[in-house]
Amino acid sequence: MAAYYFLMFLAASGAAAVTGSVFRPGRWYLTLQKPGWTPPRKAFPIIWTALYVLSAIAATRIALSPDPAPGLALWTVQITLNTLWTPVFFGAQRMGMGMIVIALLWVVLAATVVMFLMTDLMAGLLMIPYFTWVGLAAALNWRIWRDNGESA
Amino acid sequence: MAAYYFLMFLAASGAAAVTGSVFRPGRWYLTLQKPGWTPPRKAFPIIWTALYVLSAIAATRIALSPDPAPGLALWTVQITLNTLWTPVFFGAQRMGMGMIVIALLWVVLAATVVMFLMTDLMAGLLMIPYFTWVGLAAALNWRIWRDNGESA
Repeated sequence: MAAYYFLMFLAASGAAAVTGSVFRPGRWYLTLQKPGWTPPRKAFPIIWTALYVLSAIAATRIALSPDPAPGLALWTVQITLNTLWTPVFFGAQRMGMGMIVIALLWVVLAATVVMFLMTDLMAGLLMIPYFTWVGLAAALNWRIWRDNGESA
Repeated sequence: MAAYYFLMFLAASGAAAVTGSVFRPGRWYLTLQKPGWTPPRKAFPIIWTALYVLSAIAATRIALSPDPAPGLALWTVQITLNTLWTPVFFGAQRMGMGMIVIALLWVVLAATVVMFLMTDLMAGLLMIPYFTWVGLAAALNWRIWRDNGESA
């Protein structure tokens, strides 16, 4: 069953990852003013891939635990919000709405980390890099939105 | 716990639903040739809302069942693919890639229905309208793609 769960959670992460190749940071994004601490563009796909693998391992551990449903329900919400963010920010170029989505994602990820830690210590720890990275991404969304003022 | 699960699955469905308001069928879609059996536009948000509620109830029943993880893993994959489809089709206007996403969604929903039926009969039945509707939506995607030929 471990392989089945891992493949399922990797497939769900794959759907989220596909948004990054469909809605690439194009000319619009390149012309935006970005803070000095913006990570280099090439880092994003590498980091995201690693985070998706870690979070799929974490969810697999939860799925195999005696009480999987509360944590898996949270994991489901976070991967759906993650899939939504890229199309909203890079596709529709709605920085304000992107901010709402990524803030919600961050809150749900915080709850996921706590729930996972309570169920399986290692699963919780495996989610922390992802949670940290989304915090950085949210801060970046905020700064770009503030520095390039847009109504929606 | 039932209310917690229902809210989580409704939230995940809500993220999928938001794509429909961010990427509306605009001028591009209106000018496409569509088959005579295309449902009226006003029907879509009403039908999707009903289907999301039914599928959230179904997932809640599975979450409360003795062996929730196998079914919930599939439910997670389907809601992520669902969230991906609208941005790909209406946002990026990639009808061919939309076809791949919705075909995968249909296959995953078929597996979800079977898995749910084996775990909880009512949960499986509650997913059947959603599965049927996505079959229709996939056929519509196919016809629109074929009749309006596009490379990607």
